[in-house]
Amino acid sequence: MIVTTEHGAVRELRLDRPPVNALSTELIIALTRAVDSAPRDGVRALVLSGAPGRFSAGLDVPLLLTLDRPAMADLWRALYDLLRALACSTIPIAAAITGHAPAGGTVLPLFCDRRIMARGDWKIGVNEVQVGIPLPPVIVLALKRQVGARHAETLGVGGALMSPLEAEKIGLVDEIMDPESVVPRAIEWCNGLLAVPPHAMSVTREKSRADLVALFDRVESEIDETIQSWWSEETQGTLRSLVERLAKKKA
Amino acid sequence: MIVTTEHGAVRELRLDRPPVNALSTELIIALTRAVDSAPRDGVRALVLSGAPGRFSAGLDVPLLLTLDRPAMADLWRALYDLLRALACSTIPIAAAITGHAPAGGTVLPLFCDRRIMARGDWKIGVNEVQVGIPLPPVIVLALKRQVGARHAETLGVGGALMSPLEAEKIGLVDEIMDPESVVPRAIEWCNGLLAVPPHAMSVTREKSRADLVALFDRVESEIDETIQSWWSEETQGTLRSLVERLAKKKA
Amino acid sequence: MIVTTEHGAVRELRLDRPPVNALSTELIIALTRAVDSAPRDGVRALVLSGAPGRFSAGLDVPLLLTLDRPAMADLWRALYDLLRALACSTIPIAAAITGHAPAGGTVLPLFCDRRIMARGDWKIGVNEVQVGIPLPPVIVLALKRQVGARHAETLGVGGALMSPLEAEKIGLVDEIMDPESVVPRAIEWCNGLLAVPPHAMSVTREKSRADLVALFDRVESEIDETIQSWWSEETQGTLRSLVERLAKKKA
Repeated sequence: MIVTTEHGAVRELRLDRPPVNALSTELIIALTRAVDSAPRDGVRALVLSGAPGRFSAGLDVPLLLTLDRPAMADLWRALYDLLRALACSTIPIAAAITGHAPAGGTVLPLFCDRRIMARGDWKIGVNEVQVGIPLPPVIVLALKRQVGARHAETLGVGGALMSPLEAEKIGLVDEIMDPESVVPRAIEWCNGLLAVPPHAMSVTREKSRADLVALFDRVESEIDETIQSWWSEETQGTLRSLVERLAKKKA
Repeated sequence: MIVTTEHGAVRELRLDRPPVNALSTELIIALTRAVDSAPRDGVRALVLSGAPGRFSAGLDVPLLLTLDRPAMADLWRALYDLLRALACSTIPIAAAITGHAPAGGTVLPLFCDRRIMARGDWKIGVNEVQVGIPLPPVIVLALKRQVGARHAETLGVGGALMSPLEAEKIGLVDEIMDPESVVPRAIEWCNGLLAVPPHAMSVTREKSRADLVALFDRVESEIDETIQSWWSEETQGTLRSLVERLAKKKA
Repeated sequence: MIVTTEHGAVRELRLDRPPVNALSTELIIALTRAVDSAPRDGVRALVLSGAPGRFSAGLDVPLLLTLDRPAMADLWRALYDLLRALACSTIPIAAAITGHAPAGGTVLPLFCDRRIMARGDWKIGVNEVQVGIPLPPVIVLALKRQVGARHAETLGVGGALMSPLEAEKIGLVDEIMDPESVVPRAIEWCNGLLAVPPHAMSVTREKSRADLVALFDRVESEIDETIQSWWSEETQGTLRSLVERLAKKKA
């Protein structure tokens, strides 16, 4: 589900769960392991990429609706672990957002070091609220860190999706590139960081990201709330009617 | 002093204290009550509007200069209560800034969810310092949350007024509309929020605004300071000469 | 090393340590004293300027490499004292960034009230990491306050230098002016602040800058770390090869 490619000291982790790189518990755990183990393999930076036109559709809602309570609790715990692994990574991670990136597809890059998105008719945004899922507090706070309190409130509460250009304008992504250049640019960006004195870079990176890492100090108390919220009538109802609509569309 | 109009689930509270919607203790208390009671009437969102060309001139300085110490203390306590009511409202509030909005006219919208301003030759800004009033700390912090520390410092310390376009550029307002479209757009914005799953929206809204609400935890100690400061020679002198100038202008 | 010029109530402190206004312990201490003593002389605002084309090159690395451990410890303590003096100044300080302003040349203005930079082919940026010096935490946090967490992380970790226009775009400087107008504009900006009621201005300024001042509460524990880091192999090696390259260039 993850295709690994070495580009010198930079390792690319390409999400490969067709058709839309939706996040299952299995993919989330695999990605967490890949992020955690990379430095031990001597890798010095990571690129997190997706398929052309499909970075990640976020959580695999149709699959998740088949899970029982313990399995859903496992999924949420795994997702928090992944966000923490990205935030705490000792090596830089550039997100190469190769296409559509709603919900979880927007959230993963928030915890990376850099967000480079493909120019094109793709959508990005934290639309969790639109599909009945309250945005977990740690994501609200990471969003605030990324785009400031004003934009974070608007994006989170309204749950709007937007174009890459709109996302760049408010700082939700850092750069827009032609689709074929997104991964090369992410590798180049990593190599730029690897060219500077490594200890000075690492220490400054750690200090600069200390506020992002600190968000996870308070996370235990919110995980249960997030899990419980999944089983609310509103969330279940909204997600089920969404999946029905998608199924009809396909048929 | 407040004209209430129902637009479906959205209630418009239009300030109606001619000629310039200046804030008196009475208007402040009436507005606080209107904000607090709306959810109990089944209202799901609020629009706070003013007269065409005159959103609100802020505190009614000529009137306030006639008040004695207990009455002024009441006014400041009432104003803090209003700001808290706006910040803590359980339903979203869009400010339809229909015209001039100096000082208090800028401050009220800071504690709302959205700020939509009329295009035109109006002025907006926290010009309290210009008229001799130190900006109360809770307003400094809300301003920082809205436009970031750098702009907040510049705006608060210098007290400059600016055009709607300048205000939009730095994020002091969120949108500029033609004057006749400001209230309709505010209603539309509210309806947009009411169209998403309500529990997910409310919970995310609460988490996103927690930092704004938290500003009021520390407010008790500053109210006395704010009240005392009103009676300083500098503030009294500046306000009295301002009122004289305005009186001469009229005559 | 500092040329003092009085412009009415505004005092200009012009760095004058040719050829590039590099910061030595002596210059740092002299500047700290000049900042601290100005209010006692009745000065009401300060302009910190440099030579045309050369605001300040930051720390005088070739000189610093000749210092022993106690002398280097003195330098770092003196630099922290200077940053604190700028942050805590009871009168406003405008930085007139007259030209190149890498590293320390970018850092000093971060702790001032306003940053006005000369248009032209100059470089500005916190490139400490590029020369092997981890960015001290208090500077990381001041940078975050100035440009937000996202840009601060990018600037600090990558250490890139940029043009005045790029710096203005992300808020690292507040204004760009023609070179001959930088100092006059800084004086004008100070006079603008001095024209408003002084008590209201000072109190609001103190509240607006309280977060900047508070950064120094936690500074004692980091100074030793900063000093120790200077003597690391990486820092010493990078700085020594930098100085060699510069020496060859000159020859």
